[in-house]
Amino acid sequence: MKNPNIVIIGAGYGGIMTAVKLQKSLGANDANITLVNKHSYHYQTTWLHENAAGTLHHDRTRIAIKDVVDTSKVNFIQDTVTDIKAADKKIILEDGELSYDYLVIGLGFEAATFGIPGLKEHAYTINSINSSRLIRQHIEYNFAKYNNEPEKQQKRLNIVVGGAGFTGIEFVGELANRIPELCKEYDVPRDKVRIINVEAAPTALPGFDPELVEYAMNSLEARGVEFKIGAMIKEVTENRLVFEKDEQREEIDTNTVVWAAGVRGNSLVEEAGFEANRGRIPVRDDLRPEGYDDVFIVGDCALIMNEKTERPYPPTAQIAIQEAEHTAKNLTRLVKGDDHLEPFKPNIQGTVASLGHNDAIGVVFDDKKLFGWSATAMKKVIDNRYLLKLGGLPLVLKKGKLNFFNF
Amino acid sequence: MKNPNIVIIGAGYGGIMTAVKLQKSLGANDANITLVNKHSYHYQTTWLHENAAGTLHHDRTRIAIKDVVDTSKVNFIQDTVTDIKAADKKIILEDGELSYDYLVIGLGFEAATFGIPGLKEHAYTINSINSSRLIRQHIEYNFAKYNNEPEKQQKRLNIVVGGAGFTGIEFVGELANRIPELCKEYDVPRDKVRIINVEAAPTALPGFDPELVEYAMNSLEARGVEFKIGAMIKEVTENRLVFEKDEQREEIDTNTVVWAAGVRGNSLVEEAGFEANRGRIPVRDDLRPEGYDDVFIVGDCALIMNEKTERPYPPTAQIAIQEAEHTAKNLTRLVKGDDHLEPFKPNIQGTVASLGHNDAIGVVFDDKKLFGWSATAMKKVIDNRYLLKLGGLPLVLKKGKLNFFNF
Repeated sequence: MKNPNIVIIGAGYGGIMTAVKLQKSLGANDANITLVNKHSYHYQTTWLHENAAGTLHHDRTRIAIKDVVDTSKVNFIQDTVTDIKAADKKIILEDGELSYDYLVIGLGFEAATFGIPGLKEHAYTINSINSSRLIRQHIEYNFAKYNNEPEKQQKRLNIVVGGAGFTGIEFVGELANRIPELCKEYDVPRDKVRIINVEAAPTALPGFDPELVEYAMNSLEARGVEFKIGAMIKEVTENRLVFEKDEQREEIDTNTVVWAAGVRGNSLVEEAGFEANRGRIPVRDDLRPEGYDDVFIVGDCALIMNEKTERPYPPTAQIAIQEAEHTAKNLTRLVKGDDHLEPFKPNIQGTVASLGHNDAIGVVFDDKKLFGWSATAMKKVIDNRYLLKLGGLPLVLKKGKLNFFNF
Repeated sequence: MKNPNIVIIGAGYGGIMTAVKLQKSLGANDANITLVNKHSYHYQTTWLHENAAGTLHHDRTRIAIKDVVDTSKVNFIQDTVTDIKAADKKIILEDGELSYDYLVIGLGFEAATFGIPGLKEHAYTINSINSSRLIRQHIEYNFAKYNNEPEKQQKRLNIVVGGAGFTGIEFVGELANRIPELCKEYDVPRDKVRIINVEAAPTALPGFDPELVEYAMNSLEARGVEFKIGAMIKEVTENRLVFEKDEQREEIDTNTVVWAAGVRGNSLVEEAGFEANRGRIPVRDDLRPEGYDDVFIVGDCALIMNEKTERPYPPTAQIAIQEAEHTAKNLTRLVKGDDHLEPFKPNIQGTVASLGHNDAIGVVFDDKKLFGWSATAMKKVIDNRYLLKLGGLPLVLKKGKLNFFNF
């Protein structure tokens, strides 16, 4: 009897944690494990907004896969998945193909642009190391240009962030810290620069406690962030953004629109024929899609309902990591001949949103609210715990956020 | 009898040194001294290529004028000169005008583009803090973009430098050091990046000893610089450069053309009605233009013949500083009632061209050739001596190049 082939596609939070857990629970005689990823590195998606603002270097955010995956137990293939052929149990890569007995889909999110004209073409998104460091450089380039033109162009200094959800708020928080540095670097007066956060919903941070939302907006407004709440983006061009608020149409001259308002699952999984809802696949309680007993979905592409709220759980790092750990356990059982799979139950321990390097808000233990330093510290604890799980203490020391007194 | 008004326009090497010397030799009861400059800072033009390559921060290159000019003795006006009305003894500024009894013109160079189509519009020049940090960001932005496009664009990684004279050679030397860092920062393979130096003359570094030229080209080629010598640039567009060499037309796809091949004096002095040759004014041996006994010209706009070579002295920092010191002495005499002015004799002590941070070539004491470390060290000695003259030991310690063992 030959060893089963386990193929994991994507090395985001879900994919890499599945690989790291399986390399501990399965021996070389139990299964052949293969991890496929586009880059040679894993990155912490929840830190990318800092790389995009320029407040943290991207080498802190990314982790070489060979530093956490034991390549004597897991084959690593750096390649791009172009197709999932679930009926044939095959994965098509740009430079080859793989057969699997068990597949773990850990492909991440894509930006959802809801058909807003020009958004896809002209807005920047915070979704990879490449796209994030490009945002950093794009903003900096516009500052560098500003004093080199006979006619000063305000569009170079207007930065518009679409969406005041989790990512949008965290990003403007970092920008508020970064802009004074850029002003100094390029001799640009601080009062010329605008950071404008446009949100379609009737509140910033929808879903958060109003007291926390109030705190966050106050903190950000005090550092120069302008909010346009209940404002629908109508159009984006290379140097303009149009929105509508209270039935009034407004235009902002800007070279820099960062879209942080909508995500959807990877379009590959839809194209693979799974029944999907905006790229996310409804999965059974063992994280397998209906009709496929050899496929597990972890992370952003898995759609799980929260029975309490009757809405899907939002795709977060926290839930992706838990799904990965759970899937590794279930897969280990399957491989070892036990067909009884445990149902997955998310355990949401808390949510913390940073507002720059020295402020944050959050909720832990269901209803305990955190503000300021205690929230900032909690955020760092969460981040370091993940690194500990992934690569042990050496990884925490190398990439962790250890400065708890960074005011 | 009222004190004479001395107005110095431009705070480059020539202008600021004149001001610093005059504030020592004249008292508040002798003359009213006014220095006019566009920016609040002086900068060392000979270091700008390092700022442009990104190997040295521009704050090392610039010096706040108030740090070296005693504002209790010299009025400093931050404004832009728009016109010199020599017949009326007036200087017109963007926001006002000044009358003078004595004028010192220390306005610097402009790029001479010799009518090459597209050069003025599309090429970058290394002539100010603003333009230099823009080059740094422009190059970096193209690296950041490279991995964000489905179709990789070679024009983002081809950097063309027009001119293998002093500035062109020094700039490609810094680039050769900088590019490996940029490749690491943006995950770009080093072998994809081209640094191409195009020179119309039949040799690099025209006027230098052939042995030194050979050494410089070997050092740079070993670090990946390509030379196109005897190549005439025919056209520059936003993303292409065309040149002709050996009657063959060649095209290079590039977003980055840096023009370091020609300078001319500031066009304001021509427009002021002085007889000029490419913006440089032939001056008498006391540095006054024919027919104007109340005007002194120091630095790039002054044209002085070298009797030995029968060609004009090239405009360098060294000669500008000597002209300034000389002019300060002559002006002091005039103000104190002595009409006998000393003739100016340049004292060219040597010339050193850096080839990146750890290599250089030079000539000192007329014919002693220097290579490698000794030339690099000599270059730093020259730079530090200037700072010592300008602002004493504190300035050397603050802005000097003190690391003599930087390999």
